[in-house]
Amino acid sequence: MPAVPFRINAWLQYEVLERSTMLLSIHALSTARQKLRKEVFRVTPGASWEELPRVPGGNRYIRLDTGDVRHLEISYAVEATTRCALVGLDEIHRTAIAKIPHQKIPYLFPSRYCQSDRLWRLAMKTFGGTEHPYDQVRAISDWIFENIDYLYGATNVETSAFDTVTQRAGVCRDFAHLGIAFCRALSIPARYLTGYACNMRPQDFHACFEAYIGSDWFAFDPTRMAALDGLVRIATGRDAADASVATIFGRMDLTGMSVSCESEEFEAIGPDALERAAMMIGP
Amino acid sequence: MPAVPFRINAWLQYEVLERSTMLLSIHALSTARQKLRKEVFRVTPGASWEELPRVPGGNRYIRLDTGDVRHLEISYAVEATTRCALVGLDEIHRTAIAKIPHQKIPYLFPSRYCQSDRLWRLAMKTFGGTEHPYDQVRAISDWIFENIDYLYGATNVETSAFDTVTQRAGVCRDFAHLGIAFCRALSIPARYLTGYACNMRPQDFHACFEAYIGSDWFAFDPTRMAALDGLVRIATGRDAADASVATIFGRMDLTGMSVSCESEEFEAIGPDALERAAMMIGP
Amino acid sequence: MPAVPFRINAWLQYEVLERSTMLLSIHALSTARQKLRKEVFRVTPGASWEELPRVPGGNRYIRLDTGDVRHLEISYAVEATTRCALVGLDEIHRTAIAKIPHQKIPYLFPSRYCQSDRLWRLAMKTFGGTEHPYDQVRAISDWIFENIDYLYGATNVETSAFDTVTQRAGVCRDFAHLGIAFCRALSIPARYLTGYACNMRPQDFHACFEAYIGSDWFAFDPTRMAALDGLVRIATGRDAADASVATIFGRMDLTGMSVSCESEEFEAIGPDALERAAMMIGP
Amino acid sequence: MPAVPFRINAWLQYEVLERSTMLLSIHALSTARQKLRKEVFRVTPGASWEELPRVPGGNRYIRLDTGDVRHLEISYAVEATTRCALVGLDEIHRTAIAKIPHQKIPYLFPSRYCQSDRLWRLAMKTFGGTEHPYDQVRAISDWIFENIDYLYGATNVETSAFDTVTQRAGVCRDFAHLGIAFCRALSIPARYLTGYACNMRPQDFHACFEAYIGSDWFAFDPTRMAALDGLVRIATGRDAADASVATIFGRMDLTGMSVSCESEEFEAIGPDALERAAMMIGP
Repeated sequence: MPAVPFRINAWLQYEVLERSTMLLSIHALSTARQKLRKEVFRVTPGASWEELPRVPGGNRYIRLDTGDVRHLEISYAVEATTRCALVGLDEIHRTAIAKIPHQKIPYLFPSRYCQSDRLWRLAMKTFGGTEHPYDQVRAISDWIFENIDYLYGATNVETSAFDTVTQRAGVCRDFAHLGIAFCRALSIPARYLTGYACNMRPQDFHACFEAYIGSDWFAFDPTRMAALDGLVRIATGRDAADASVATIFGRMDLTGMSVSCESEEFEAIGPDALERAAMMIGP
Repeated sequence: MPAVPFRINAWLQYEVLERSTMLLSIHALSTARQKLRKEVFRVTPGASWEELPRVPGGNRYIRLDTGDVRHLEISYAVEATTRCALVGLDEIHRTAIAKIPHQKIPYLFPSRYCQSDRLWRLAMKTFGGTEHPYDQVRAISDWIFENIDYLYGATNVETSAFDTVTQRAGVCRDFAHLGIAFCRALSIPARYLTGYACNMRPQDFHACFEAYIGSDWFAFDPTRMAALDGLVRIATGRDAADASVATIFGRMDLTGMSVSCESEEFEAIGPDALERAAMMIGP
Repeated sequence: MPAVPFRINAWLQYEVLERSTMLLSIHALSTARQKLRKEVFRVTPGASWEELPRVPGGNRYIRLDTGDVRHLEISYAVEATTRCALVGLDEIHRTAIAKIPHQKIPYLFPSRYCQSDRLWRLAMKTFGGTEHPYDQVRAISDWIFENIDYLYGATNVETSAFDTVTQRAGVCRDFAHLGIAFCRALSIPARYLTGYACNMRPQDFHACFEAYIGSDWFAFDPTRMAALDGLVRIATGRDAADASVATIFGRMDLTGMSVSCESEEFEAIGPDALERAAMMIGP
Repeated sequence: MPAVPFRINAWLQYEVLERSTMLLSIHALSTARQKLRKEVFRVTPGASWEELPRVPGGNRYIRLDTGDVRHLEISYAVEATTRCALVGLDEIHRTAIAKIPHQKIPYLFPSRYCQSDRLWRLAMKTFGGTEHPYDQVRAISDWIFENIDYLYGATNVETSAFDTVTQRAGVCRDFAHLGIAFCRALSIPARYLTGYACNMRPQDFHACFEAYIGSDWFAFDPTRMAALDGLVRIATGRDAADASVATIFGRMDLTGMSVSCESEEFEAIGPDALERAAMMIGP
């Protein structure tokens, strides 16, 4: 697929109640499929920050110390060019458990928000009849879209896949967690993915998930709110515990936020193409 | 501390109900502090296995395919020599969140069995008054020993720290999970540790936890059933989801098990020494 | 339907670890539809007991003080004659919420094991399209039979409908709780029912549920293990918290149990009859 | 204690999204200790309502049908005169389980929000050393006040005692649920109580709990926000599932609310008096 440029802006505003440290995960990743330029990161003077040295394959984290700042503003801008790949479905082989590479094994295990161990019987009953793992994951993503209501306010930061599968409502984070939990319950490695989503309305940080099938990570968005090829990758992890936008050690209240991801050239590939091919956006 | 040799034997027996794959985590680690020799691993002929290439800092995993074997026996023997280190308490510095190295950050996040996000208020109320993080973790370990009953049958594989903190009963796995959850709630990185424990009665695989303080991982056993310097390390992880003895993909029932870890030379250091020093057994 | 006589025997054996009080709910009820004779209740000499005065519409409870008895045996025998009623489906009217009598209203509320408040969206999506409440409850009972595996050991006394709906396995108690939770989520009063079940294999105390539709309670058994017209009623309640066989205040271990419910005359009505009619076994 | 008159006003406003039925529990009870006069209940014309016939000892429920009303207002006013009783602590006897009257037994069982079965070990460890049940309940109420933060927004309608005991924050409803769960775990019958609280700031519906000790129900308010002798009783139940202000069958959003309970004559008895005596406000 062609390279597509995106202009990204993010802005966060906090009321700092006591001097705090925060881990920020809002920087786009630089990968073989995603190139960055003109990256600008600014915080209110008085706060200090550093970017942590990146572990290979890991996320970018900014560690920020609020110092004495009370009204903290954080802004981030970047131009990212991504180059997704479509892989024909007949080229994706199923991977026996016996062949999953070591680095992917942790993505088979249950995590804070994805209790795959408690969902395996339901997963087997619902998706166990499907043969190919890619078809299973597509069935999972479709099932979530059809059965879970996208609804603000129905869930909170403690809500997990085990809740969502019964409560049947949530936001992109909850949709992704449920997809991950179902995949792992079927012995398919799956991980959480955050990003900037081009043209998504309303504009916000977005979350979806990737499943490891054959020898690649393929992306799925059970909310169907964003085009997968319009996604600029921020972070991956086992679930939102690893990849939340901000982890705060101290006391701060979010008082404002805006996000945008625009492109003049981007044109999402149609659903027809995605019927016949899988989307790789990962590193 | 002096190097101490241990002789380890483990034996597992399964009834295989359908052809299955299992991930085994029973091999001792080879680290700067732990040397192995005469390692022998055997399985019933007909089953096949391979050791996965080890990720740096990762666990050893054996992937085993049962093939057509119905009565599966697995045996493992090794001689391990460990060399723990005692670090004087006044040499352990507190690490600001702002200084925790990147690789340790995932150990701050909540995980499947350690929902530190839901325990932080309790952790702050109970241990927040203690100044030094080492003293906090020791207080956590003591609190667990004093408040949780060691009891077989009260918990199962789904039990998490959030359950245990109220239900007040469990086994070594539950004790470790609660310790980890409290540490992370206090912004102290913590991880799960499995091992062979010399002279523990009854003999079994053991679990405890490590907390990252200053610039090292220190070990704590809130069950007080095993001597920390008599522990031969098998695996570490965020919690038992990463480091269970056996993860089964298929259908197999455990029908027999024995474990032993013996040493003629081992003499546990006394509680007095541990009053003044912390135990490093890790890599 | 004709009156049918049943011979019931129950025997319980306990190891008493400390002097305890227990509430027993194993006595058959005497109601307009269920007559008793030759009732015999015996306990090991040294233990004392009384039957609590029965609240109108309430259960029969035996309060037993173990005294100094260490090996406690409890036996109960009775001959019960029941007369169920079949009501043609076209005679059952739907009851608007606005017409449910006051005494039935508590059976609309969530309870310990039946968190109908957390299942309403799922209930609406799954059964909301069905018009008549009787058809809804029948659809619920069928859905449970088809989707939940009857499996010993998968659940315990803490398991609730919220667990079972995802974990998809359980025993009669769990099946009944899920039926009740779904009914209440659809604004249909529902209650838990325990009884002796004629010819059930294996013989055990049985649990199913009743839903209040039109102006009567109708019985449903989502396990399909027992014939509804072969059920001798012991107790009803909001869920198993109200109607467990034994509630123990103290420390006692169950060491033996046998139950039987036999009849020479009983012949269960066939599924055809139940296609066209609903079963009333209640008072 | 002298009779005290209170003037009560309550006003609720809803946006009705579809025709709905609601059960309202905002009417003060008429009991031997609480007399009512000048009761006025009004709803927006077009909505219809009836008061359900009261079950002996039960709550008053208004069943309201919104009809075609879109902006629904509900107002309630009454003058209530209450006469509490103080009972000297040495007059309160402990009740053996073996003597608890049948009607109180359901208040020993776990309920939706009060999972006493999961808290018993914690309850025994924390309060088991106290001899007299009245002292135990007072210790429970004090413990909750001291250990749980009163905080809006930390909990929601699904929060239960099992959550609160660890999360350590909540509102009056959560405080009451935890008190009830602890009592029942100690085999003390306990129930949920809602009421209008004189001079409470901010004015709102209030919830606390009652424990059955000796032969009476005694009231406790672990929030210490309201004077127990300034409470006008609305409803009791096993927990908030039985006694919530409004249970809605349909779709309505609360858009406004005000509550007041005033008295010119009321003077709360001091803490000294409550050191030596227990408060009975019940029927």
